[in-house]
Amino acid sequence: MARQLFAEFIGTAFLLIGVVGSGIMGEALADGNIAIALLANAIATGCILYVLITTLGPISGAHFNPVVTAYFALTAGFSRRQVPLFWIAQISGGTLGVWLTHLMFDLDIFQLSTTDRTGINQWSSEIIATFGLLFVIIGGLKSRPETVPTLVALYITGAYWFTSSTSFANPAVTIARGLSDTFAGINPAHVAGFVLAQIIGMGMAILILPRLFKD
Amino acid sequence: MARQLFAEFIGTAFLLIGVVGSGIMGEALADGNIAIALLANAIATGCILYVLITTLGPISGAHFNPVVTAYFALTAGFSRRQVPLFWIAQISGGTLGVWLTHLMFDLDIFQLSTTDRTGINQWSSEIIATFGLLFVIIGGLKSRPETVPTLVALYITGAYWFTSSTSFANPAVTIARGLSDTFAGINPAHVAGFVLAQIIGMGMAILILPRLFKD
Amino acid sequence: MARQLFAEFIGTAFLLIGVVGSGIMGEALADGNIAIALLANAIATGCILYVLITTLGPISGAHFNPVVTAYFALTAGFSRRQVPLFWIAQISGGTLGVWLTHLMFDLDIFQLSTTDRTGINQWSSEIIATFGLLFVIIGGLKSRPETVPTLVALYITGAYWFTSSTSFANPAVTIARGLSDTFAGINPAHVAGFVLAQIIGMGMAILILPRLFKD
Amino acid sequence: MARQLFAEFIGTAFLLIGVVGSGIMGEALADGNIAIALLANAIATGCILYVLITTLGPISGAHFNPVVTAYFALTAGFSRRQVPLFWIAQISGGTLGVWLTHLMFDLDIFQLSTTDRTGINQWSSEIIATFGLLFVIIGGLKSRPETVPTLVALYITGAYWFTSSTSFANPAVTIARGLSDTFAGINPAHVAGFVLAQIIGMGMAILILPRLFKD
Repeated sequence: MARQLFAEFIGTAFLLIGVVGSGIMGEALADGNIAIALLANAIATGCILYVLITTLGPISGAHFNPVVTAYFALTAGFSRRQVPLFWIAQISGGTLGVWLTHLMFDLDIFQLSTTDRTGINQWSSEIIATFGLLFVIIGGLKSRPETVPTLVALYITGAYWFTSSTSFANPAVTIARGLSDTFAGINPAHVAGFVLAQIIGMGMAILILPRLFKD
Repeated sequence: MARQLFAEFIGTAFLLIGVVGSGIMGEALADGNIAIALLANAIATGCILYVLITTLGPISGAHFNPVVTAYFALTAGFSRRQVPLFWIAQISGGTLGVWLTHLMFDLDIFQLSTTDRTGINQWSSEIIATFGLLFVIIGGLKSRPETVPTLVALYITGAYWFTSSTSFANPAVTIARGLSDTFAGINPAHVAGFVLAQIIGMGMAILILPRLFKD
Repeated sequence: MARQLFAEFIGTAFLLIGVVGSGIMGEALADGNIAIALLANAIATGCILYVLITTLGPISGAHFNPVVTAYFALTAGFSRRQVPLFWIAQISGGTLGVWLTHLMFDLDIFQLSTTDRTGINQWSSEIIATFGLLFVIIGGLKSRPETVPTLVALYITGAYWFTSSTSFANPAVTIARGLSDTFAGINPAHVAGFVLAQIIGMGMAILILPRLFKD
Repeated sequence: MARQLFAEFIGTAFLLIGVVGSGIMGEALADGNIAIALLANAIATGCILYVLITTLGPISGAHFNPVVTAYFALTAGFSRRQVPLFWIAQISGGTLGVWLTHLMFDLDIFQLSTTDRTGINQWSSEIIATFGLLFVIIGGLKSRPETVPTLVALYITGAYWFTSSTSFANPAVTIARGLSDTFAGINPAHVAGFVLAQIIGMGMAILILPRLFKD
């Protein structure tokens, strides 16, 4: 159990290093062309996701995402007693990842984002993004489980571009990104709206996916 | 059967979100450098194609494309009675995908494209693009079926660049893109020409592929 | 035999569409930023290589390259009688691919390149590029044959960037690119120098690879 | 044994061609937009890493990195007598790679970098980068060994972006990059600091990874 929680902790830490670090580097180098920064951000996030899910999947399931943990607890027999422990590991790991990134890039360790991300279009984007993420995980586990690391990595790389919110789709990532006033940040006041939208997306997934991907 | 049709419907919806959404995001961020927008558009489309074909392939075959459905009905024993139902699922799913994308990006839901895409060079491009898409699917099914999601994804990512029309190669996608006056759109008046070219490409495939990829 | 030759013919045609078409599109859209054009060119070429080698490998071996055909004839028992037929299929296929690309992009079909590519640094680059290509193919066939399409695709995508000549590494491709006065072209007067360098690279491969990748 | 050392030698040579060559090309073409240069640099490095680890893995283990060799000697039974020979092969191969790259790009063969890369943030970045590289290798060998080439390639492609030092994570690469006053260079006076940080990262890996990835 301790090993599982440590896997969720270190995995989510590396995930946030991937997301926030590549955002900082991209914005610093892109000379105002935000598209190039987002492209690097999306590719780097996909890379680290593939790597973390492949290596840590056999240990903890490689959730790194409270919504994924909740989905498995609600539909697939994941132990409900472990859910809050997984959530704590994910959120604390994500926070550590953000702080290590600030250390690496010579920024103040403790920050709060000032980037507004709110409104119906952003929330609808997070609903679709989260539904899509669960769609990809559940569909992949049903059709070809060995492809799940690739599926999640490519889905998120693409979804940075085809959703207006750039697909946070993960409450632990959303909270941690509230702690970075850099490219990937989100104003802490807007975190709750994103998390609520992610929960709605999970609800849609619970309704639809077990029927679509039934045995 | 209902599950198959729903798979075609939701898969084509996500495909259009991928194509149209990433086009909007790319154009918005690229600061006039269309090459970066098209690169993001091509990568995001490849990502979503891999994901959808892997997860939905076992359910419906993951056509998402009336020309693919027709090819299988004409050459490979796909039930001809199901063809019109698949077409309806694909076109209606694609349309829903475009409208959801407009919702996410805070645009008017109902639009008609004003982007001209016509002429012999564009049509020859669609003939080659469609022939190539079927080449890749049929060749992959013959040589290594487990690679088909990768083959289609990489083929389309490349073909965005090496064909002058950016490879629509899909009547459902073409019709749905007529409903978006954004980066990926096509003037509805030019849809018929594209679809006709796609049918010609399918005809060439019917002539050549069964001989090239025979047992 | 006819099917093998047709596979080499159509495969090399599609390869040149990939190389020349994506070069034209990249240069047209990149607004003077050649790095973006080359990035799209490299990615699109990698995509089409993966696709063609996977689908046509079981039919003809998917050489698409006179130097690869010669290497297999000299070291691995490929029928020497077939070598000139393969070469003709590759060169004529490549030529057709260039012409079809010009048709798609509404350019004059018949062109000669005016892009100078010559000098010791370019030739040394082609020697290394060709040696590396054969290294990857022979090493992959020895270690994990199912990865050869990925190996060749990624090698060439990378080698566009890490060799000064952008890695033609293929006499059929070199000759065909002499026929396009676009981004990917090469002045026909400089074709012979490139081909000679490619032959030298093959000679180095014949000396080194059978010892490095012995059973 | 000679074949193993030659594999390390030629593999590290090609790795440095990949890193340094793509950096030169990127900077030359990117017209001042460093983000595009780094994106090409990262993608090309990932490509060559996949290729080299796949082809040379069965011969030498495809370390190309003194820290990886040391890790295996200290924890996994790799022969300690071979360690210095591997180190010599890696450093001399890397040096040759840099010089061949300068030849290809028509630059002075012998150079010393003037690019400063020093300070606590850079060193913390190299500690994390090296720990992450070993994490990925050891985790992959434990969970799915056939994915190690992909894991290393994608990890490094991502880590170019999400670490402030662009993830050298390799003393042989660091030393060799000291010999190139181009995009990828590092002032020789700063090599020791990077190597020390990489050793610290390896120390952290020795403490943590055997427990996380235990049987």
